Amino acid sequence: MPTLETLVSLAKRRGFIFQNSEIYGGLGSVWDFGPIGVELKRRIKDFWWTSMVHNRNDIEGIDSSILMDPAVWEASGHLKGFSDPLVECTECHRRFREDQIESTCPECDSELSSPRQFNLMFKTFMGPVEEEAATIYLRPETAQGIFVNFNNVLTTSRRKIPFGIAQIGKSFRNEITPGNFIFRTREFEQMEMEYFCHPEDSDRLFKEWIEFSMNWFKEIGIQEKNLKTRIHTDDERPHYAKSATDIEYNFPWGWGELETINNRTDYDLKNHMEKSGRDLSYFDEATKSRYVPYVIEPAMGADRTTLAVFSDAYHEEKVNDETRIVLKFNPKISPIEVAVLPLSRNEKLASISDKVFNLIRNSFRCQFDDTQSIGKRYRRQDEIGTPICVTIDFDTLDDNSVTIRNRNTMKQIRVEINKVNQIIKDHLETQF
Amino acid sequence: MPTLETLVSLAKRRGFIFQNSEIYGGLGSVWDFGPIGVELKRRIKDFWWTSMVHNRNDIEGIDSSILMDPAVWEASGHLKGFSDPLVECTECHRRFREDQIESTCPECDSELSSPRQFNLMFKTFMGPVEEEAATIYLRPETAQGIFVNFNNVLTTSRRKIPFGIAQIGKSFRNEITPGNFIFRTREFEQMEMEYFCHPEDSDRLFKEWIEFSMNWFKEIGIQEKNLKTRIHTDDERPHYAKSATDIEYNFPWGWGELETINNRTDYDLKNHMEKSGRDLSYFDEATKSRYVPYVIEPAMGADRTTLAVFSDAYHEEKVNDETRIVLKFNPKISPIEVAVLPLSRNEKLASISDKVFNLIRNSFRCQFDDTQSIGKRYRRQDEIGTPICVTIDFDTLDDNSVTIRNRNTMKQIRVEINKVNQIIKDHLETQF
Repeated sequence: MPTLETLVSLAKRRGFIFQNSEIYGGLGSVWDFGPIGVELKRRIKDFWWTSMVHNRNDIEGIDSSILMDPAVWEASGHLKGFSDPLVECTECHRRFREDQIESTCPECDSELSSPRQFNLMFKTFMGPVEEEAATIYLRPETAQGIFVNFNNVLTTSRRKIPFGIAQIGKSFRNEITPGNFIFRTREFEQMEMEYFCHPEDSDRLFKEWIEFSMNWFKEIGIQEKNLKTRIHTDDERPHYAKSATDIEYNFPWGWGELETINNRTDYDLKNHMEKSGRDLSYFDEATKSRYVPYVIEPAMGADRTTLAVFSDAYHEEKVNDETRIVLKFNPKISPIEVAVLPLSRNEKLASISDKVFNLIRNSFRCQFDDTQSIGKRYRRQDEIGTPICVTIDFDTLDDNSVTIRNRNTMKQIRVEINKVNQIIKDHLETQF
Repeated sequence: MPTLETLVSLAKRRGFIFQNSEIYGGLGSVWDFGPIGVELKRRIKDFWWTSMVHNRNDIEGIDSSILMDPAVWEASGHLKGFSDPLVECTECHRRFREDQIESTCPECDSELSSPRQFNLMFKTFMGPVEEEAATIYLRPETAQGIFVNFNNVLTTSRRKIPFGIAQIGKSFRNEITPGNFIFRTREFEQMEMEYFCHPEDSDRLFKEWIEFSMNWFKEIGIQEKNLKTRIHTDDERPHYAKSATDIEYNFPWGWGELETINNRTDYDLKNHMEKSGRDLSYFDEATKSRYVPYVIEPAMGADRTTLAVFSDAYHEEKVNDETRIVLKFNPKISPIEVAVLPLSRNEKLASISDKVFNLIRNSFRCQFDDTQSIGKRYRRQDEIGTPICVTIDFDTLDDNSVTIRNRNTMKQIRVEINKVNQIIKDHLETQF
């Protein structure tokens, strides 16, 4: 397993992830996705959307805003539950929730400061003049955007329960202790789905969604040995959840949460009914009965999943006494699928190389690279996890064939140009 | 041309766009994308990304954060340029920039309030305790995330100038006068690309990018007659631009900006060099010369483009004395490509209908619908712009064929099930 430092260094060297505002020293715990990283994260998000919304016939997608009416956060319990009086040790400067400690610092026994109000939600002001403006919040979860749209989606999609609503989007939490690269950041992206069901079905569906999620992580290529489930203890369960189970990944620093599957019961819909005065109950035509649905929520971190995929794909191998670093991404989510590499910049190869590139680029996510030695270019493609390299050499001019190299085995085969697309397609589907 | 009210009503009725926090009365000028709208916007964004990043060999993508070091906004001029003293008329309550008016209200000649500071940027606080926290801002444009990453992208991608960096993401502006549905909102999504070039090439490339953008809008299906370019007058040009041209769309309320193409010169890179102390100049190997690149920026609104596509696709037609509403989306971006509609819920049709749906769903964005009369379901699919409906009827049980209906012409043809995917594919490519 790679160390976190190894991953951070590779991420920067190959254009996966850069520190935000790095030229100004870097904004703490905020990260930007570079040219390779943005493709990887896009593939992962698309894979999730396809699995949830397109491939299932019981889930609708939405995209709600980051800014919402503050009444939403009052009803959801976040304004209360996410706000705590915080005390700080005058010596070691560690911070603690006031209600969880005694009179002195539990770490160094020194004196504590007087408590100050702390809210996990970022607040801002909407409206043209600050003094008059309404205080609003950046959402700490995308889920509430789904709950307040429940009736609108139900009506326009004419769904029957059980059905789900999925969305991908940014959330913000003013974490006390962010860290571990893109694992815990103050700005992050979630992939959340709320599955509305009859209360009696909720325990069964809770288990089914844990299973679905575990399979999903395996499908994108994470090794089974690095995944496990962990049931929340009573005191760590979120305020809205009847039961909660994490799916954890074996990160370089140990096991950490990738996703939580919650049984949120009717907590959110009931609170929004009470606070908004709108009826959010559901009438079941078949049984002629009315009830407030329970909700099973698989809530996944897109950045954490990207980090897990990145870490899991990392391999070091000895090749001719040198260390080869290779990212063994599942080709379904690898940032680049095919690299087209002319052996040299000799002008005799230019025209045929362009021809091959133009032939391949419409079918696959491609990169063209003709700088540096072929060895260095293979190494670079290994480090960004490109499953297939296509090399054009001087023999190509004679035999109209190219060399295809497999990332994992480094084996090379010779392929006719007019069959190259079909062979790459077959190879990607069967050889990785 | 539809009225704005017609579009807002259709958007809500068919699940394109809902008002955010609607059950609480709605947050002003903030909107959520429903099940159909989220697919439409996703297709538009994917189309842009494919056009910019995948189909061109001179552009890299990134995804930078919304939160950035405040020094970025000082260097870019936004902290100063986006902040104005604002006065308000004591009678009509219109607001004006203090430096642009005389002593009384230009509208009603009444008295003005004393000036108050106004900043277009949303501010928030990062860190655990508010009093100590750093004031930071929600980005008002995605472009700065590209400029501060210029060196990182240049190094890791080993690009030569000219080349571009593209990104799609949310921006926030505390507009004085938001409005016109999703046209001007305080939270919005941008599709921006910064094209780095030699200063001498910038005027030529400025023109080329205007042409590229116009073609792009036509390619996604917007009618040419509803598009025009407009050169910015001297007093409206952004503070960073040497020249600026808008591409405007003929919205229901008149011509409005879809995209601005700016020649930002070396303004941003030079200011970041000065403020950060980092060298962001470029060394050209061919001419052995060093310079700070100029930047051409096509900056497009994703929400505005979605609104333009939505408005442009809207058609009303008389069919048998009734009005048919049909959205004539280009199939490349239509939310749903194929609807599979069993003629009735008769159980004899269930098994064959499932078979047809499962045959089609892996190749196209599909929807299955077996509720209500077939006429109502055709009407619904017309209103969400689905180009093809596939109907399974009782003849299907005998002849193993289905009916394919063309959205635009309403013509129907009979097709064998084992050829249905190929015929739909051909039909989508040639008949719309």
